[in-house]
Amino acid sequence: MEIERLRGLFPPIPTPFDEQERLAVHRLRSNLERWRACGFSGFVVLGSTGEFVHLNDGERLRVLSAAREALPGDALLIGGCSLHSLRDTMAYIHAAAGEGVDAVLVNTPCYYPQAREPSQLAAYYRHLADRAPVPILLYNVPQFTGVSIPPHLVAELAEHPNIIGIKESSGNLRVLTEIARLVPSDFVVLTGSASTFYPALLIGAQGGILAAACVAWEACRGIFDAVQSGQLTKARHLQMQLLPLIEAITTRWGIGGLKAAMDLRGLYGGPPRAPLPSVDESARAEIEHLFTHSGLFSPLEL
Amino acid sequence: MEIERLRGLFPPIPTPFDEQERLAVHRLRSNLERWRACGFSGFVVLGSTGEFVHLNDGERLRVLSAAREALPGDALLIGGCSLHSLRDTMAYIHAAAGEGVDAVLVNTPCYYPQAREPSQLAAYYRHLADRAPVPILLYNVPQFTGVSIPPHLVAELAEHPNIIGIKESSGNLRVLTEIARLVPSDFVVLTGSASTFYPALLIGAQGGILAAACVAWEACRGIFDAVQSGQLTKARHLQMQLLPLIEAITTRWGIGGLKAAMDLRGLYGGPPRAPLPSVDESARAEIEHLFTHSGLFSPLEL
Amino acid sequence: MEIERLRGLFPPIPTPFDEQERLAVHRLRSNLERWRACGFSGFVVLGSTGEFVHLNDGERLRVLSAAREALPGDALLIGGCSLHSLRDTMAYIHAAAGEGVDAVLVNTPCYYPQAREPSQLAAYYRHLADRAPVPILLYNVPQFTGVSIPPHLVAELAEHPNIIGIKESSGNLRVLTEIARLVPSDFVVLTGSASTFYPALLIGAQGGILAAACVAWEACRGIFDAVQSGQLTKARHLQMQLLPLIEAITTRWGIGGLKAAMDLRGLYGGPPRAPLPSVDESARAEIEHLFTHSGLFSPLEL
Amino acid sequence: MEIERLRGLFPPIPTPFDEQERLAVHRLRSNLERWRACGFSGFVVLGSTGEFVHLNDGERLRVLSAAREALPGDALLIGGCSLHSLRDTMAYIHAAAGEGVDAVLVNTPCYYPQAREPSQLAAYYRHLADRAPVPILLYNVPQFTGVSIPPHLVAELAEHPNIIGIKESSGNLRVLTEIARLVPSDFVVLTGSASTFYPALLIGAQGGILAAACVAWEACRGIFDAVQSGQLTKARHLQMQLLPLIEAITTRWGIGGLKAAMDLRGLYGGPPRAPLPSVDESARAEIEHLFTHSGLFSPLEL
Repeated sequence: MEIERLRGLFPPIPTPFDEQERLAVHRLRSNLERWRACGFSGFVVLGSTGEFVHLNDGERLRVLSAAREALPGDALLIGGCSLHSLRDTMAYIHAAAGEGVDAVLVNTPCYYPQAREPSQLAAYYRHLADRAPVPILLYNVPQFTGVSIPPHLVAELAEHPNIIGIKESSGNLRVLTEIARLVPSDFVVLTGSASTFYPALLIGAQGGILAAACVAWEACRGIFDAVQSGQLTKARHLQMQLLPLIEAITTRWGIGGLKAAMDLRGLYGGPPRAPLPSVDESARAEIEHLFTHSGLFSPLEL
Repeated sequence: MEIERLRGLFPPIPTPFDEQERLAVHRLRSNLERWRACGFSGFVVLGSTGEFVHLNDGERLRVLSAAREALPGDALLIGGCSLHSLRDTMAYIHAAAGEGVDAVLVNTPCYYPQAREPSQLAAYYRHLADRAPVPILLYNVPQFTGVSIPPHLVAELAEHPNIIGIKESSGNLRVLTEIARLVPSDFVVLTGSASTFYPALLIGAQGGILAAACVAWEACRGIFDAVQSGQLTKARHLQMQLLPLIEAITTRWGIGGLKAAMDLRGLYGGPPRAPLPSVDESARAEIEHLFTHSGLFSPLEL
Repeated sequence: MEIERLRGLFPPIPTPFDEQERLAVHRLRSNLERWRACGFSGFVVLGSTGEFVHLNDGERLRVLSAAREALPGDALLIGGCSLHSLRDTMAYIHAAAGEGVDAVLVNTPCYYPQAREPSQLAAYYRHLADRAPVPILLYNVPQFTGVSIPPHLVAELAEHPNIIGIKESSGNLRVLTEIARLVPSDFVVLTGSASTFYPALLIGAQGGILAAACVAWEACRGIFDAVQSGQLTKARHLQMQLLPLIEAITTRWGIGGLKAAMDLRGLYGGPPRAPLPSVDESARAEIEHLFTHSGLFSPLEL
Repeated sequence: MEIERLRGLFPPIPTPFDEQERLAVHRLRSNLERWRACGFSGFVVLGSTGEFVHLNDGERLRVLSAAREALPGDALLIGGCSLHSLRDTMAYIHAAAGEGVDAVLVNTPCYYPQAREPSQLAAYYRHLADRAPVPILLYNVPQFTGVSIPPHLVAELAEHPNIIGIKESSGNLRVLTEIARLVPSDFVVLTGSASTFYPALLIGAQGGILAAACVAWEACRGIFDAVQSGQLTKARHLQMQLLPLIEAITTRWGIGGLKAAMDLRGLYGGPPRAPLPSVDESARAEIEHLFTHSGLFSPLEL
């Protein structure tokens, strides 16, 4: 893959469910239809925001297949993976490649302390990369997994020709800087932390996979473009305006809040799967208030 | 279920794999054959020690089915469950009941912070308990999941007629005491922490589901019986002798270490699934040394 | 010191302040007068409960001096110490010995990560023990300091003739069991966790330094005596009755709550020093309710 | 104070000790003599790097007094404070003001959980600010204290006319951005995290109090100036070159490492006070190697 294609902005797409929490692939298609016009560099399905862990094997493949079909052939599609055993992960990667994903985003195993050790993580990713029919992106998200891939290990793995980048979602800029310092220039560092998107771009990230981009693509794109063109004041201002929205759709209400915000933007949100909570009417009103008063949208956009 | 049957000692059975890490159900059968004579109150399959998270759906059912077949009809069989979505968990419980388990041991959802909130945990367990064809045991194992069920919530859930007990694996005796204080007498509290088995029995646990029991059933049983008969000095002595073995097969080498110790006791251990590490020869020698010098076994028993 | 004298129950005495938060040594004397009749094995002043960190150098010596004077010459007096530098700690120990303390209880340094390393802790305690004119008790209280002395290090330090015991306040019974397993029989293990007092006594603690003993000496003493005489049901029952009181005077309201409970028992409580909060009237009423309904006191005792 | 004077770069000065760990004020004077020519906006003494917690009351005042004397009257001098009780902190602030400090940097109380609550922190800082004869800077350093001042509380306290800024040392850029978003423009945000200095300046910090500046003032100043003049590539490059040095003098060897690096730069380093470890010869050689190969210094500068 040309590494250039991995730079820029990617939405980690929530998986749509109907009111009975059944997979609603037609909603995925209509959402993608809308997002196609938003200036993304590509699309990530089945990440944390995509509720990978709430789907069964068959549903996962249906999501990949539907996304591939709904997108033009040249649109970059990345499939997430959060499984625990090497053999399940290997099997999934092959299946995902069969559905046409361009790369896979592979989370760290996290259940057993002994499997979280750097030496085990190294062996895990190397084994996968040696055999995977598509390139691998590392995925570091300690707030969900309790596991951090140390920067020096990222650098070692970056030497593997089939490990092409990392999604770094801790939001720890010291870690991101250290990774950017150690990896070769053809290894892509994408941040998964929207609340540090602007500083991350300045210190070494080449883009982001941001849940906020699903509902505030203009502002996320605006930060990215402003950094490219050296308009730092503008980028900083957009980052600060985004902050309360990000807090609402991540820390505070999580995926339920993000899906409510999608409804607000004319996309299909719907409920997350239990035990993830849906937002109630009062939360929905608060989210609407936050979006309306963010200064980021004109009345027509909401 | 008569609650009396849940008191006592249960081994959380490791799932056997062959050298290619394929499920080896015949090894499960032969192990159970051996364990049947060890004085257990019943058997737990597919817990954390059973590598639930490393098996696919089909493999899980094969393990349940093989265990049920290998055991007499009146032997208590408990099936573990560590899934993230309510609907997957519900489906699994029905399937497990269909395979003949007497109860299910249901772990806390743990990936998303919003799903770990007490209110969400409460709704999750209540929804399952209302519909499950077999009784439910709560499972609290924060060292793996990052989630703790607060004691007051355990007490609230204990009022549900289909939630019959808890496996409390944190090893925090303050928490266990508080749970024992708050729950009704027909709710069973089992500890999952072998290193605090003796004090846990004295303060309120009615038994244990202990990985150590898979390889040192005599000592675990010895502690339990000594407490029943008031031989506290003996119980304390056994607990202390067990401590280095427990550390080896849990904290230090984990399931790989436990499986090596099973080989030592004439059972089939084999490898865990990657990325869980197998122990190397030097670790194997250390484990053998620990067992030989524990004072717990005669030469004929090793 | 004869090690026998360190077995049993010790109250870690709160330092009394008047309404302007000035040190009120006459209140310390009157409190000690009352406590002398409560069957304690000795007294600890200037521990965490004694607000060591809220007193200046001069005040600390006045507390030690007043306590020594108020107690019979054969009453065991232990002085706490929570300083960061070796030289300050050394100077304090000499001054405390000059005031007549029988032993010092020395907390782990905790501010700098490099000073928390086991090797530094070892050197720190050894240096002190080599020179201290009175014996040293180690103090492990990770909930306040963020530092844990590993059990194997406790065992190494226990070989020093001038390090005679440990106050282990983590409440982690696995840690306490491991310490009890590794130390020689003339090294005293005292728990600082009232909520695990009963199981701690059974597994290896020879007594406790318990804030709860300042206000519920009958129950704490009752647990100790019941364990000595093998009345386990009674000990367990008392432990459970104590639990809500312990939660109130430690986790929930802290030293402010403990001092309010002292008022209730006819001692002088008064305020803690800011920024520690005093309890308001509604908290005071809740604490009174907890004590009245604990089943531990007759109406005349409150 | 004119808030402008607080912008820029400040070294948090280590307190010099001789080989017997005695306070060596003449070394402080000679170091300040050297640092005066380094383009700092002012000087901080008795911060975490200044081993405040390792000094007694008298030593603290001697350090303040010596620093004041060694500096020109118009040089900004900030005195650190890490005490636990409100009354000790109040007394110290008055004494420090008497020695001529221009402002005090006041750490969060951290020993007791109840004192770490936001409401208690708010009352603590307000009480001090109402009475302090010099302005107050908040100090947030959770890696040492375990306490974080929430951004919304920083914003509330920023409204107090005598609370003029914050040293934010967590290095968490999300927190720093949120603080910068919420505080008024005349409240100064200084970062204490050298490893995120460059991105912090871009998102809202107006300067830094950086241990790294004690030994690599050229690079720290270079980052600051490059950001002011829009030379982002240069700033980013300097940040990356600094990273291994920062790791050596903070995380890895701490103050002992920093003092060794001071020796290297022709300043007086000397030992820290025990239990902080001094670096041995091999560590000293590693530090020298890191500095020599950082690309930041010419041979003449080392």
